[in-house]
Amino acid sequence: MPVEQTAPRWDEETDVVVIGSGLAGLAAAIEAGAAGSSVVILEKMKGFGGNSTISDGVVAAAGTPMQAESNIVDTPRRMYDDMLKAGLGLNQPELVRILTEQSSEALQWTIDVLGVKYRDRIDQFGGHSVPRCFTTHNHSGSAIIKQQLHKLKEQGMKIRTRVLLKKILMNNRNRVSGVLVQEGYQYPESESGVEKRIKARKAVVLATGGFANDIALRTSQDPRLTREIGSTNKFSTTGEALREALRIGAMPVHLSWIQLGPWACPDEKGYGIGPDFASYIAFPYGILVNPQTGRRFVNELGDRKMRADAILQVGQPCIGLADEAGVRASGKSIARCLKKGIVKKFDTLEEIAEVYQIPIPSLKKTVETFNMGVDRGRDPEFDKPVVSNATPLKHLPYYGIRLWPKVHHTMGGVLINTRAQVLDLSHEPIDGFYAAGEVTGGIHGACRLGSCAITDCLVFGRIAGRNSAS
Amino acid sequence: MPVEQTAPRWDEETDVVVIGSGLAGLAAAIEAGAAGSSVVILEKMKGFGGNSTISDGVVAAAGTPMQAESNIVDTPRRMYDDMLKAGLGLNQPELVRILTEQSSEALQWTIDVLGVKYRDRIDQFGGHSVPRCFTTHNHSGSAIIKQQLHKLKEQGMKIRTRVLLKKILMNNRNRVSGVLVQEGYQYPESESGVEKRIKARKAVVLATGGFANDIALRTSQDPRLTREIGSTNKFSTTGEALREALRIGAMPVHLSWIQLGPWACPDEKGYGIGPDFASYIAFPYGILVNPQTGRRFVNELGDRKMRADAILQVGQPCIGLADEAGVRASGKSIARCLKKGIVKKFDTLEEIAEVYQIPIPSLKKTVETFNMGVDRGRDPEFDKPVVSNATPLKHLPYYGIRLWPKVHHTMGGVLINTRAQVLDLSHEPIDGFYAAGEVTGGIHGACRLGSCAITDCLVFGRIAGRNSAS
Repeated sequence: MPVEQTAPRWDEETDVVVIGSGLAGLAAAIEAGAAGSSVVILEKMKGFGGNSTISDGVVAAAGTPMQAESNIVDTPRRMYDDMLKAGLGLNQPELVRILTEQSSEALQWTIDVLGVKYRDRIDQFGGHSVPRCFTTHNHSGSAIIKQQLHKLKEQGMKIRTRVLLKKILMNNRNRVSGVLVQEGYQYPESESGVEKRIKARKAVVLATGGFANDIALRTSQDPRLTREIGSTNKFSTTGEALREALRIGAMPVHLSWIQLGPWACPDEKGYGIGPDFASYIAFPYGILVNPQTGRRFVNELGDRKMRADAILQVGQPCIGLADEAGVRASGKSIARCLKKGIVKKFDTLEEIAEVYQIPIPSLKKTVETFNMGVDRGRDPEFDKPVVSNATPLKHLPYYGIRLWPKVHHTMGGVLINTRAQVLDLSHEPIDGFYAAGEVTGGIHGACRLGSCAITDCLVFGRIAGRNSAS
Repeated sequence: MPVEQTAPRWDEETDVVVIGSGLAGLAAAIEAGAAGSSVVILEKMKGFGGNSTISDGVVAAAGTPMQAESNIVDTPRRMYDDMLKAGLGLNQPELVRILTEQSSEALQWTIDVLGVKYRDRIDQFGGHSVPRCFTTHNHSGSAIIKQQLHKLKEQGMKIRTRVLLKKILMNNRNRVSGVLVQEGYQYPESESGVEKRIKARKAVVLATGGFANDIALRTSQDPRLTREIGSTNKFSTTGEALREALRIGAMPVHLSWIQLGPWACPDEKGYGIGPDFASYIAFPYGILVNPQTGRRFVNELGDRKMRADAILQVGQPCIGLADEAGVRASGKSIARCLKKGIVKKFDTLEEIAEVYQIPIPSLKKTVETFNMGVDRGRDPEFDKPVVSNATPLKHLPYYGIRLWPKVHHTMGGVLINTRAQVLDLSHEPIDGFYAAGEVTGGIHGACRLGSCAITDCLVFGRIAGRNSAS
């Protein structure tokens, strides 16, 4: 496909063009602005912040003063080891090193420079070997986005919404020189709006997020992820900017590593409220059942990929079951789940079998076998670690949820170096082209750990911003 | 990166240009020629046949007359299921359907049209649910290559060696129009030879194989696969043609799925002779030991990926051990392995511990535990299926081999459709551009089963050839 070679007539000039207004893009814009560059921030949607605004707002950081105060011994190296373990060694080690070494500073930056407030607790998400997960006061990434916007306002910058990236333009020295965009774009009409060429004197920073809702792109990499599979992401999380980066010769990496949430319920849109019941109650205290056979089929506490793959293999939504004792042991409230019908209440196993169309004899046998395992402290079927306060499934009422994986995170994207420069197919930086956040690949490898995405956006967004301005 | 837009002065014209002279390229050339097209076949190396000539020459085919004669019940659907299971569902289903449905015909074509001779036996390689693996008389892919060459000669075609692909050229309608090559290329001098432009009136077929020996490309996708990791492939198995296809906008798929052989010995080059000892003797009848701990660390009969990843995690070559009873039970001769020093003979565990620097107390304990498991018919450590004729490790002498994974196959490449047309980043066929064999991706998904690679080359090579000529 052709790359524009002749010098276009520019409609506008700036030092740095940032594409995308999520956590990574705004971090880049703030740093580029702080370094004295003029910055144009472009967002394709009507609202700003992208998928970052619906993230859970949890930031992983290692070796922080807050951990030290709580006597939590942690180092960037330890976080590095955790990320490489989860990533099955596919992670680019130098990028993980940078992310982990700068994680504490990035968190502190959101506090000191942006004024983000965090809750007092420090959590330990799955795959992290110590507590290092810091949650914003409102348990949402919007808390950081909001403060980034304040900062940008102080710096005299604002986000231009409804501007779609059409082409990344290169000059005849193979340097990224600007962008062709459509102003007044109306999602999803790809030809809507008015074409405009913006010259980027210093750099273009790509921070357009993942492609969880790009059915064509994700099925090209993992054909199981058809339209029938939902996503926890905003519907606008598509891959047109990633494709454009590949078109100009960026090196793709790990595109087929697409993370599914096995805790997702098909009876609600997006991330929803069901995952809390699944993750904190059904999986640790109860069982996951194949409705065709009435049997368990996977370790309910296995990793995300193992569980999601197993449910997809069944070929239809599976049933997560727990009882009243499990709910109590978890310390969680399921009132909202019950009210919205995401979780259903049952008085007998027969009732469960009828509603979910499970063969009742095998369901009874499954519960019986599981309960014996709980009594003996060892799961005879899948070696699931039996949690210390687990009890047999017999304390009425029972609770059930339908579970069918949703696309949660796309680990793959364009390959960057430690300066956040996008690398080409010969592994050389593409001059004037930077990227950060979920549009990049290689940092998380096979599996992105919970709370590491925001750290990624902050650390590499800031690096991209600083370097693009230099 | 720029794509040539202006019409070049052509030095030569032909209907079809085939890049690569392995099984896929020659299958394409034969079919294109049979359809009446003029064909130019280009090979970068001095010798023809590429990596195909050192393959084991085993072809998977389902629903063949030979299976029926042996009362083996097999269907393309069954082979499809086996491939999707091994591929973890990442395989493009339509491509697998074509491969399996045409597998029997492809095998028959090599017999009837090419005159390839096969051994009488039908093997069942790992991951195949029935015997469907047909071995050429000389147990090498060279048997097929040789017959392909005869056929080409009959058709009046020959292979031009030492011609390196530099650029795939496109016209201003985004159609592949020809190639820029270097004639008289001297591997690995990328600038050697004389530039020449060959117009392809109908199509260019890319059949350049995998990138197992392209250190830069493979480490960009899997950073563990540094220069320290060997390969079973020819040294010329590099990715410059794949990069060129990506540069003109081909859709990449599964680049990070790179298959390692856990049965490879670092004390010899290439595939070597050690894998036979490892696969047929040490893994089923003996144990694999981490020399640092003296302990087993993985199910020796787990899948290739599980075992190779586990050895890499250890960080140094691990030791495969067996005894005389294992060798006898396997029915294999290890004379060559012993003569070349790939396998070593020992009279005591102490001797093994000294040579491989294993802590002797834990090695003794490991063997003791394993032997108890063999006696009881159940492996207490890794649930390895204990083979029926297994005996405890105590029948002198012992035998040992060092094992360190080698890169064996790159599952990823460019995405094609069922007509073998290369797809672009918008999932549309690139006009005039076909591909077949290991340079393509998406067919084998996460794991290519043994003997399916040649079938892939034959089936999609022929499809590419037929369609490119039309």
